[in-house]
Amino acid sequence: MAVYTEVPDDDLARFVADYDLGEVVSYKGIAEGVENSNYVLKTETGSYILTLYERRVNPADLPFFLGLMDHLAAKAIPCPTPIKARDGKALRELAGRPAAIISFLDGVWPRRITPQHCAELGEAMARFHVAGTGFALSRHNALSVASWRPLLAACASRAHEVKPGLAAMLAPELDWIEREWPTGLPTGVIHADLFPDNVFFRGERLTGMIDFYFACNDILAYDLAIGLNAWCFEADRTFNVTKARRLLAGYRRVRDLVPAEVASLVRLARGSAMRFLLTRLYDWLNTPPDALVRRKDPLEYVEKLRFHQGVKSAADYGFE
Amino acid sequence: MAVYTEVPDDDLARFVADYDLGEVVSYKGIAEGVENSNYVLKTETGSYILTLYERRVNPADLPFFLGLMDHLAAKAIPCPTPIKARDGKALRELAGRPAAIISFLDGVWPRRITPQHCAELGEAMARFHVAGTGFALSRHNALSVASWRPLLAACASRAHEVKPGLAAMLAPELDWIEREWPTGLPTGVIHADLFPDNVFFRGERLTGMIDFYFACNDILAYDLAIGLNAWCFEADRTFNVTKARRLLAGYRRVRDLVPAEVASLVRLARGSAMRFLLTRLYDWLNTPPDALVRRKDPLEYVEKLRFHQGVKSAADYGFE
Repeated sequence: MAVYTEVPDDDLARFVADYDLGEVVSYKGIAEGVENSNYVLKTETGSYILTLYERRVNPADLPFFLGLMDHLAAKAIPCPTPIKARDGKALRELAGRPAAIISFLDGVWPRRITPQHCAELGEAMARFHVAGTGFALSRHNALSVASWRPLLAACASRAHEVKPGLAAMLAPELDWIEREWPTGLPTGVIHADLFPDNVFFRGERLTGMIDFYFACNDILAYDLAIGLNAWCFEADRTFNVTKARRLLAGYRRVRDLVPAEVASLVRLARGSAMRFLLTRLYDWLNTPPDALVRRKDPLEYVEKLRFHQGVKSAADYGFE
Repeated sequence: MAVYTEVPDDDLARFVADYDLGEVVSYKGIAEGVENSNYVLKTETGSYILTLYERRVNPADLPFFLGLMDHLAAKAIPCPTPIKARDGKALRELAGRPAAIISFLDGVWPRRITPQHCAELGEAMARFHVAGTGFALSRHNALSVASWRPLLAACASRAHEVKPGLAAMLAPELDWIEREWPTGLPTGVIHADLFPDNVFFRGERLTGMIDFYFACNDILAYDLAIGLNAWCFEADRTFNVTKARRLLAGYRRVRDLVPAEVASLVRLARGSAMRFLLTRLYDWLNTPPDALVRRKDPLEYVEKLRFHQGVKSAADYGFE
């Protein structure tokens, strides 16, 4: 829930005049997304999303993000397309911030997830992974396994404010994850944040994936592990194996997993639970109480982590 | 900046199915407005605004607000039209809240106000006042002069947190306003909250007035006094008499002021400055620090009030 930068209407009019989009008809700040300022922009030619990149996004990464969307859209992956101004550039500046206009995707993100949503997600994720192989740029995953120890260290002294004994529970788990972290698995461009609010549907048909601002090069199956955590637990935090089975099966219809990926799935799931637990914990402890962002509960991921600690093999995720 | 109620997508689909609007194509929470939850709703037939009325709006007032929009739109006042479902009703329920779909108005609210904006505003406000005369319902202004003393009483003990000596400055001013408050002036339906973010333009042409949720029956010229405060001060809080002159002249092109209204303008301006000062002060002192609402600075209205205290007559507002 965020609009960090107010865009003056006359500045916007000048900005949009550099595109072949006609005049601005309306623009309204969107209350979704926590990293950037987003507007629904209506011009004489249609609806678009205007994004102003705020300080949590490294400007040096923007050519990767925008280039990836361009690359994927050209391969018919349902994702936003950056709109180029008349000078051929999609990445520009507005109100003192890097800014881009991207295409508006129809569809709504699902508040109540069905197994069919998960099947569609799996298939789209696999298509994304396959389509990403030809992309020329690469980006290191700044939030992968190497980053978790410093994150934990930054939170450890205050983790008890969220849950007594939390740091003591996380320390041996992180030791285990670091020791067991798989190597040699297929890598490529992953989305790394395919949560339900980043995936649009009409009915149960997937119409779009958005928010590529965590995309990076990493283990492909790690994306799948993030998906298991984000899509296959119920509101009461129980694991829904039917949803997981459909997610995995959907993925494998497009790209099958090699045996080493299957064997690593539990470790990847524990790792991705740790990643979201730690970033949520950090944000929880460090978001000023008057911030305009609703903090996400780190404890949700403590429970997910506990679940994965009890998992024996990928069969427990419905892998067949 | 606010979306208080998350609307599940399947609930929304069922809700929209009761209208002749086709299927939901997308919906996004808007980061504007502080009283209600608002969404840009796109369906197969076009764009709309979906509003869920939150607890600060009295449900008993909703027939007045929606009926007024209907009445005004029928008289060609540029304002949103409530969309009726197939049962003929515009006021319905969604996610446990009263809810309505209203038409989407093109245009953007001006961040940098020009004298021409003020002229357009004056004219549109007068047309609104004239068109409101035939409206059958009425609503008492719960935030008029009688409410200011209890509001001040509720803030007095902590007003010094905002500015030392503030309560001592406001007490005699309120005495004066109460004693001098005009009677016998023309009354009717007023908007009562025509701030720049509630008025849309394309270029300098006014295309819409929105947010009727403070509309009520009161002194017509009080609306004009609110406009002077909201539109005719610069960011450095100096008064721009050119803007005021254009606002008043624009208004009078449609509806001229009677002498008693002209003679009362200073008192109405001091009163309206007091009204926004007090509600902002109250919200400032009573908004939880973790609220998702950006609080508005009450001190802005202290300075405006000071300006009006030095005004001798309507001529100082550019009245000719």
